[in-house]
Amino acid sequence: MRVGIDVGGTTVKIGIFDNYQVIDKFVVETKKETLFTDVCESIKKRCNEKNYIIDKIGIGLPGHVVGNVIDKLPNVGIENMDLEPIFKKYFPDVNITCTNDANAAALGELLADGDKTKSAYMITLGTGVGGGLVIDGKVRDGSHSNCGEIGHMFVDFVHNFKCSCGLYGCLETVASATGIVRIAKLYFDKFKTKLTKETMTAKDVLDAAKEEDPLGLFVLNLISDALGRAIASVELSVDVDTFYIGGGVSNAGDILINKITEYYKRYAHFAVKNISIKKAKLGNDAGIFGAAYL
Amino acid sequence: MRVGIDVGGTTVKIGIFDNYQVIDKFVVETKKETLFTDVCESIKKRCNEKNYIIDKIGIGLPGHVVGNVIDKLPNVGIENMDLEPIFKKYFPDVNITCTNDANAAALGELLADGDKTKSAYMITLGTGVGGGLVIDGKVRDGSHSNCGEIGHMFVDFVHNFKCSCGLYGCLETVASATGIVRIAKLYFDKFKTKLTKETMTAKDVLDAAKEEDPLGLFVLNLISDALGRAIASVELSVDVDTFYIGGGVSNAGDILINKITEYYKRYAHFAVKNISIKKAKLGNDAGIFGAAYL
Repeated sequence: MRVGIDVGGTTVKIGIFDNYQVIDKFVVETKKETLFTDVCESIKKRCNEKNYIIDKIGIGLPGHVVGNVIDKLPNVGIENMDLEPIFKKYFPDVNITCTNDANAAALGELLADGDKTKSAYMITLGTGVGGGLVIDGKVRDGSHSNCGEIGHMFVDFVHNFKCSCGLYGCLETVASATGIVRIAKLYFDKFKTKLTKETMTAKDVLDAAKEEDPLGLFVLNLISDALGRAIASVELSVDVDTFYIGGGVSNAGDILINKITEYYKRYAHFAVKNISIKKAKLGNDAGIFGAAYL
Repeated sequence: MRVGIDVGGTTVKIGIFDNYQVIDKFVVETKKETLFTDVCESIKKRCNEKNYIIDKIGIGLPGHVVGNVIDKLPNVGIENMDLEPIFKKYFPDVNITCTNDANAAALGELLADGDKTKSAYMITLGTGVGGGLVIDGKVRDGSHSNCGEIGHMFVDFVHNFKCSCGLYGCLETVASATGIVRIAKLYFDKFKTKLTKETMTAKDVLDAAKEEDPLGLFVLNLISDALGRAIASVELSVDVDTFYIGGGVSNAGDILINKITEYYKRYAHFAVKNISIKKAKLGNDAGIFGAAYL
């Protein structure tokens, strides 16, 4: 059996898997001081209670990880921590593998799609924009453990907003939940709209687009254009089978996926116009599933 | 021993390798009708004469290849040809592997750099702009055999020239030999220059830059900016150790490599500002070397 762990800012999700099926799931609160000993103890306890025999633990982490050593998890407040000795103390004979949470989610989505050997990119549209790459069924962390940071790809030469990373015109400045609200506010006075300037969320904006609200549709087009350009560049760079669109913003569903696909086809090289762009379907479970099969 | 074959529009280069050293090199004329039987016969003859015992043949091809089947080699005029049966007729017990010539060259450069397990991108600046990707020492053809076509990445939102591929603003429209002359002609009247508008070549333009010719320097900056942006996007997508810059234009040498690096650092994500951007050093031999070790 395998254990998949997905570390988040408020909770840690843990899944026990057997033959690509989840057989148990539980959650541990994210406490900075005791996070990984809490996680190990809860797994140990569950294994003893239910007689699970595990031979592999995979961990998806929200930040920069090199091998099994955490460099930095900004939202958890942990830096420079080697996870190998912590887990080995509890599970001396179990293989441990870590990766970025976006990579784990990418692998989870690919496995859920039923093809273990294909290549896929996952793009997570949340507060920021993250990404993860799986090549021939294997997660790629990259030579500097920075693979998939496509939220910082230059795509918006029109507004050229400054990004939190220090660069300008990054995908994240327009296509994240934050970016969607930023764009909607910027163009608010140019359109007749039912949205409320001060309180609107990214969900409100995309919900409005579904009802053909002119401002909502404008923003939907603008972010889909940015995403279409970014996906076209990624596809030239690494040529995968499928792009999965996940994160809170992806809950907008078909209207967003179809619009991204429309712009992608406009900007894509002729040899790869017909790749597959899909909504990620596992939601919160992608991370534990992918982590278990790293 | 291994055979590396690099198919070009006018000649086919062939190398015999042993333990990563070339021990013999020869050339066959590119005749569309008899190309691969000519190649097989010349290898067979050479092996018989010199008692070479070969167990692997690798082939780099200038066009779209899927597995060992040629889809299209535009400059040779060959389409839809399975190379496996042709080579198997002459070398029944020898393993055959094909790839795009840019991928073969990328692997050749990486091997020449002495690290068989790293990841690298090769960018070839010639009449067009090509690219090849090696991940952890293994060439990546991509899910649609289209990996590395970064000449068609959108980077130039200022001129937005139409590219031969049908898209606009592609890297190739400015950073190829053709693009360099196009840009130099467009801005010719804006600068005092020693260049001659009607006859200047890409080499002339970059040579002029070395002598601080204002037009030459302007073009050098403009193409380095485009290349710096493209490399920053590729690096976010796939995160490799090294970029090799090859092809005729790369003979401009340090002035070009240094300027690309300067712009790359301007556009790069903070976590990967210090990657290595190098001039490819094998020149014409990169293709046979890489092909032999596919």
